Amino acid sequence: MKSRAAVAFGPGQPLKIVEVDVAPPKKGEVLVKVTHTGVCHTDAFTLSGDDPEGVFPAILGHEGAGIVVEVGEGVTSVSVGDHVIPLYTAECKTCLFCLSGKTNLCTAVRATQGKGVMPDGTTRFSYEGQPIYHYMGCSTFSEYTVVAEVSLAKINPEANPEQVCLLGCGVTTGIGAVHNTAKVQEGDSVAVFGLGGIGLAVVQGAKQAKAGRIIVVDTNPEKFKLAKEFGATDCLNPKDFDKPIQEVIVEMTDWGVDHSFECIGNVNVMRSALECAHRGWGQSVIIGVAGSGQEISTRPFQLVTGRSWKGTAFGGVKGRSQLPQMVEDAMQGKIHLAPFVTHTMPLEKINEAFDLMHDGASIRSVIHY
Amino acid sequence: MKSRAAVAFGPGQPLKIVEVDVAPPKKGEVLVKVTHTGVCHTDAFTLSGDDPEGVFPAILGHEGAGIVVEVGEGVTSVSVGDHVIPLYTAECKTCLFCLSGKTNLCTAVRATQGKGVMPDGTTRFSYEGQPIYHYMGCSTFSEYTVVAEVSLAKINPEANPEQVCLLGCGVTTGIGAVHNTAKVQEGDSVAVFGLGGIGLAVVQGAKQAKAGRIIVVDTNPEKFKLAKEFGATDCLNPKDFDKPIQEVIVEMTDWGVDHSFECIGNVNVMRSALECAHRGWGQSVIIGVAGSGQEISTRPFQLVTGRSWKGTAFGGVKGRSQLPQMVEDAMQGKIHLAPFVTHTMPLEKINEAFDLMHDGASIRSVIHY
Repeated sequence: MKSRAAVAFGPGQPLKIVEVDVAPPKKGEVLVKVTHTGVCHTDAFTLSGDDPEGVFPAILGHEGAGIVVEVGEGVTSVSVGDHVIPLYTAECKTCLFCLSGKTNLCTAVRATQGKGVMPDGTTRFSYEGQPIYHYMGCSTFSEYTVVAEVSLAKINPEANPEQVCLLGCGVTTGIGAVHNTAKVQEGDSVAVFGLGGIGLAVVQGAKQAKAGRIIVVDTNPEKFKLAKEFGATDCLNPKDFDKPIQEVIVEMTDWGVDHSFECIGNVNVMRSALECAHRGWGQSVIIGVAGSGQEISTRPFQLVTGRSWKGTAFGGVKGRSQLPQMVEDAMQGKIHLAPFVTHTMPLEKINEAFDLMHDGASIRSVIHY
Repeated sequence: MKSRAAVAFGPGQPLKIVEVDVAPPKKGEVLVKVTHTGVCHTDAFTLSGDDPEGVFPAILGHEGAGIVVEVGEGVTSVSVGDHVIPLYTAECKTCLFCLSGKTNLCTAVRATQGKGVMPDGTTRFSYEGQPIYHYMGCSTFSEYTVVAEVSLAKINPEANPEQVCLLGCGVTTGIGAVHNTAKVQEGDSVAVFGLGGIGLAVVQGAKQAKAGRIIVVDTNPEKFKLAKEFGATDCLNPKDFDKPIQEVIVEMTDWGVDHSFECIGNVNVMRSALECAHRGWGQSVIIGVAGSGQEISTRPFQLVTGRSWKGTAFGGVKGRSQLPQMVEDAMQGKIHLAPFVTHTMPLEKINEAFDLMHDGASIRSVIHY
């Protein structure tokens, strides 16, 4: 079938809106009509050419919501008409990782997903007879996309897709990191580095967990207003201080924070986040994705004196098991999504969404088809 | 009073056996007659001059056993004649850290201990009228030493001091790291980097925890025999492989080990240890002490895909609360200390103990007075 899509033909180039061909779903696959998709920094990261897994030409987009249009052979967990959120972190419920009870990092489609193809090694997208690659198992920048069954969360059809599409990535990642990875407890202190969509979601999660002090750090003070609405208690702009921001935080908290979160993807900030963690038990969670080849570093003394350094992907959330409840939470006002949607626009304007993001002028632009 | 002691007069110099003057214990302090002390790599590290906290002249030694000779004002938890192990990690039971239930990193005497003095800022040792500094709050290379009350574990007087002195540092650190920091569970896989006293103690701890697979790594295959006796299931010499040892371990375990332990103090090995940890949930614990200014590094991807990086000091063991039981365990054969004591010698030969250690010819030399 034909589908409107924004295709990334090469690194650093604007997306091009074209009509691509979409092949029918094969065994274990599902054809989804995407109704809305957020534009996330990770899309921009891959488009820049810095992502070592990035392949071109590809259809990017991984933060979507849509409706099942057709199911391939053997698909049982979703049916035509179901409302779904595509998952870049699949959940097969049968692999070593899904069965471990310790992680959400399912391996079912991992190897092929990283290469931009479906589990059988081929692509369902083509343009003028040439194959177009998939992206993160989602490719939500196409109105019609093919996704593995294990990569679809079935959600309440009453949910607002313009908002809950954000649960496909950023918001879930931030909230999940608080509950699943850091396991923030009532009264704990928290520091959040970077107030993009993920950082603001961490603030929401910390508030849900009844954290005692929620310190946010950003070089753009315009972001502090919303952070405060979500529950931030202290707002720090590193530019206002002569010393490293981790020292500022350690001083204002006596010994550091119980939990810190890096929500940018900057390896220097990751170090700051670790080093503002509480002596004895503080932990720091890396959420941001760093550039290819970049490394984190610190003195081992930081760990020997009781700090621990962790990371999270998709907030440790198991998509098929847990995302439906998060959608319900959003519908009940327990997760606030509306403030994240700063811009909406049709697919044709998607390059403007990237510009807004680069300028720091948006939290999320949501594309509607 | 007079006391025989091995004094470190300057970095890189052999210790000198002299008679020092020891002042009586002040308020909250205890005079201990040291009967035995191990010689540990940390003593050698400080003696080398690489330890940023190292001050000279000082009386080193921090792995001892002894008997209380005199108590200062207000001391209530030990009495003259009690058998004790000096603690370089104090336990005051009243500070924020002791009360947290999350760490053993008591702060009661931390600041002054790091400067080589007692809590009142002065030293109890002198030689020819000049002050001699304390070391790690213990200074067990003096037959008589003054220690803070909060830095003394009272132990069963029937215990063999030539062996249980090793619970003052290395063995407790290794076993404690397994139980307190990593919390190894039955069936878990473990990798141990470095088979000195700490590494061998980690192997013992892992065996106690009923770990399923215990992989040990050392460039000296002569150490594998004892490691196997303690429970190692796989012995790897990195020199036998063309690829990084972490890759070897990941391949032989499919996805890496549940827990890894760095027991050397080499920042490159710390990286290897992290990177052989299991995708999704593996954790790596740094036990070794790295040289001043050295840093650990890795790609953040290692953490984002579920590994966590931790550290431990004194194995997370609270000395006054937990060490007495570990002494009982050693007496009941649940902890094997005898194989660690490869050499014994009088204080006068202490420099030979350092030579044996540098040559890799000893696990522990124990000095008797």
